Amino acid sequence: MVNMNVNLPWTEVKGENSDIVLATRVRLARNIADRLMPQKLDAEQGGQVLNQCLGVLNKCDSPKFTCCKMAELHPLERGVMVEKHLVSPAFMNPSDYALAAVSEDEKTCVMINEEDHIRIQCLLPGLQIEAAWQEASRIDDMLAKDITYAFDAQLGYLTACPTNLGTGLRASLMVHLPALTLTGRHKAIFANLARMGMTVRGMYGEGSEAAGNLYQISNQVTLGISEQDIIENMHNVTLQIVEAEREARKALLQKSEIDFQDNVWRAYAVLAHSRRINIGEMMEKLSYLRLGIDMGMIEGITPHQLTQLMIKGQTAYIQKAADKPLNEIGIECARADMLRQELPLLK
Amino acid sequence: MVNMNVNLPWTEVKGENSDIVLATRVRLARNIADRLMPQKLDAEQGGQVLNQCLGVLNKCDSPKFTCCKMAELHPLERGVMVEKHLVSPAFMNPSDYALAAVSEDEKTCVMINEEDHIRIQCLLPGLQIEAAWQEASRIDDMLAKDITYAFDAQLGYLTACPTNLGTGLRASLMVHLPALTLTGRHKAIFANLARMGMTVRGMYGEGSEAAGNLYQISNQVTLGISEQDIIENMHNVTLQIVEAEREARKALLQKSEIDFQDNVWRAYAVLAHSRRINIGEMMEKLSYLRLGIDMGMIEGITPHQLTQLMIKGQTAYIQKAADKPLNEIGIECARADMLRQELPLLK
Repeated sequence: MVNMNVNLPWTEVKGENSDIVLATRVRLARNIADRLMPQKLDAEQGGQVLNQCLGVLNKCDSPKFTCCKMAELHPLERGVMVEKHLVSPAFMNPSDYALAAVSEDEKTCVMINEEDHIRIQCLLPGLQIEAAWQEASRIDDMLAKDITYAFDAQLGYLTACPTNLGTGLRASLMVHLPALTLTGRHKAIFANLARMGMTVRGMYGEGSEAAGNLYQISNQVTLGISEQDIIENMHNVTLQIVEAEREARKALLQKSEIDFQDNVWRAYAVLAHSRRINIGEMMEKLSYLRLGIDMGMIEGITPHQLTQLMIKGQTAYIQKAADKPLNEIGIECARADMLRQELPLLK
Repeated sequence: MVNMNVNLPWTEVKGENSDIVLATRVRLARNIADRLMPQKLDAEQGGQVLNQCLGVLNKCDSPKFTCCKMAELHPLERGVMVEKHLVSPAFMNPSDYALAAVSEDEKTCVMINEEDHIRIQCLLPGLQIEAAWQEASRIDDMLAKDITYAFDAQLGYLTACPTNLGTGLRASLMVHLPALTLTGRHKAIFANLARMGMTVRGMYGEGSEAAGNLYQISNQVTLGISEQDIIENMHNVTLQIVEAEREARKALLQKSEIDFQDNVWRAYAVLAHSRRINIGEMMEKLSYLRLGIDMGMIEGITPHQLTQLMIKGQTAYIQKAADKPLNEIGIECARADMLRQELPLLK
């Protein structure tokens, strides 16, 4: 049974830029020496990798991991784990030897037999790349005591996909950029990021759309650069994006404060009163509402609550919470009901 | 100083069809014998017509009339009178000898030197053609004691415009047809009405748009037909339109009750929370909200209140109530503020 609690650490608000940087994720890709990569493993070998990792993870005291085979979960339960950002979307269709080990506080998750044998991820609220890296690194060191990693003196850590070679480190920042998006300035910034070896994706990673003006910015380059340099680069670039978003918000406000307020309150109005709402509209309206809260235009709701609503309004979560099969209309109605119940009545 | 009270008789809800037929207006066009028509009068003759009528109106006890020269009112005050349906839009640009005599309950108004010397109008809530006609006729008989009307044995009452010749009687029904409009069925019905010698206009008469799915249906033909036949025809046709609207509402509900509810609640949401709203959007949303109330989907607001909000949200009313000059944005913001203050918070 998957945990339906959405009081996740990364939904909290932490640090001075956490109005724009919702969360930081650091993940490390590792593989076991002298083993085929996960997609090449047969059932026996897959089971061996799984059991070896499981033995090490079960020994761990800090954090204590709850382990579950992904294939044994109901698809909706896997969906909820993806929506909570505990595991990657690739785990929606897991192999029989895919496993997720989640810490009790749900900050840390180790995925076994995803694209690589081992993926360690740490997800923290706000802009905390260094702290997330420290925690992921600590888990990494711990696993390395019992597991010999596939490592090459020239290439560094060996990974299933060459884009992860070297450090195997990917730092991702979940950023909320409504003003840059509304003014269209995000395009030039994202083009610049690409030139600097960074990628921008939607909030559920590769292939997902940038719903709700939420973007994941990650380093593309993992090879020929030190972990510390990756982290510093990402940190500095993120600060620049934050600054650009703040400027764009000021510009929107100067252009027409009343239209700004009107947009924000109309977004609240739809969320608080609609009887049917699709996920794209919910994400868009939650974004404007968050913007209004950030700008001090709306009181009585916190950004923390909004992030929780965002998770609770996701499609798998809605279906799992309903505990009965829902068609598309049923999901949209249940989403509207949830939002109406959770949001306070404001004037 | 114009009366800003919007507790008008015609905003009340009266009779079994008053959910669809908001109000009934009957007006009689009369002219004084051996006088030029108003648009041909010079100042002296205009003043004579004015004084003759004023003398008669001032004598009247039931109802007591409050008389004011339209030219002496501020344009915004004239606007409010038009928006309250006390006088016709033609009185926005009055001559120096144009006068409005309004009864204390604002059911009855006599316009002097509009298109004709005398126009008697009676405005009642719901479908009450006979009652409105009786009251207008009573005023007519009273005036006829002191005034000799221009009358021809062949043509009947003589009027400035030939379309009013004969009875000088125009009966207008203010009907709310959101479902017929949404389903597009109103077009065929209106085409039929035209063939039957009836006209359909917006709620502020000739040239006004059918904002908020509100229409005025009137008889076009006044000549060669008795008053009683006009009244019976209009009554029967109105009942048929009411029936068609009820059918269209049922059909909308059967098609998708949840979308119906969603539309209604989203309309409420915009009215209750927007910070800036233009008159077209207000009228549209008030229409959907009224529909929701009619269908029992929303409680806590009455149709009576909605009609009052509609008047209070009109442009002249907003400006007059603000008691300071407002630009377009200012009007839209004041309208949103008024709606937010007046509407209860519902969930």
